[in-house]
Amino acid sequence: MKFSITITLKKDVLDPQGKVVQNTLQNLNFKNLKNIRQGKYFEIEVNNDDQKDVEKKIDEMCKKLLVNLIIEDYKINKIS
Amino acid sequence: MKFSITITLKKDVLDPQGKVVQNTLQNLNFKNLKNIRQGKYFEIEVNNDDQKDVEKKIDEMCKKLLVNLIIEDYKINKIS
Repeated sequence: MKFSITITLKKDVLDPQGKVVQNTLQNLNFKNLKNIRQGKYFEIEVNNDDQKDVEKKIDEMCKKLLVNLIIEDYKINKIS
Repeated sequence: MKFSITITLKKDVLDPQGKVVQNTLQNLNFKNLKNIRQGKYFEIEVNNDDQKDVEKKIDEMCKKLLVNLIIEDYKINKIS
């Protein structure tokens, strides 16, 4: 089974990297940009067919290693 | 309108960063991991209600700045 994890900064956390991308795009003449936020993305393939168990494991991985819960939110999705 | 861009390394491109995450998770005692790939993620908010036009613009942003087309694939999704 394959899952994706999308990690984003919480709403009130500053995102200087996103700001730089936004400024660069504006300099490249893209108008009407309101906001850009950058995040992280993981695709995880697991040898295990028990979806509930896998989801629990991946949630644990996020909490233990991948996500900084103080400043980040995360979402787990099944891809296949 | 709000869109997400997910950027992943092409299948045959090595992903040393993902490998490190995979090894670390295995050391944390997560078994059954088959593969982990790391990617990038952007959320873009635009002041423009013409969805077709926005999608075209975002595709252009990807090609001009955000994505290295030689080694990366990308997907654009409407969030809201």
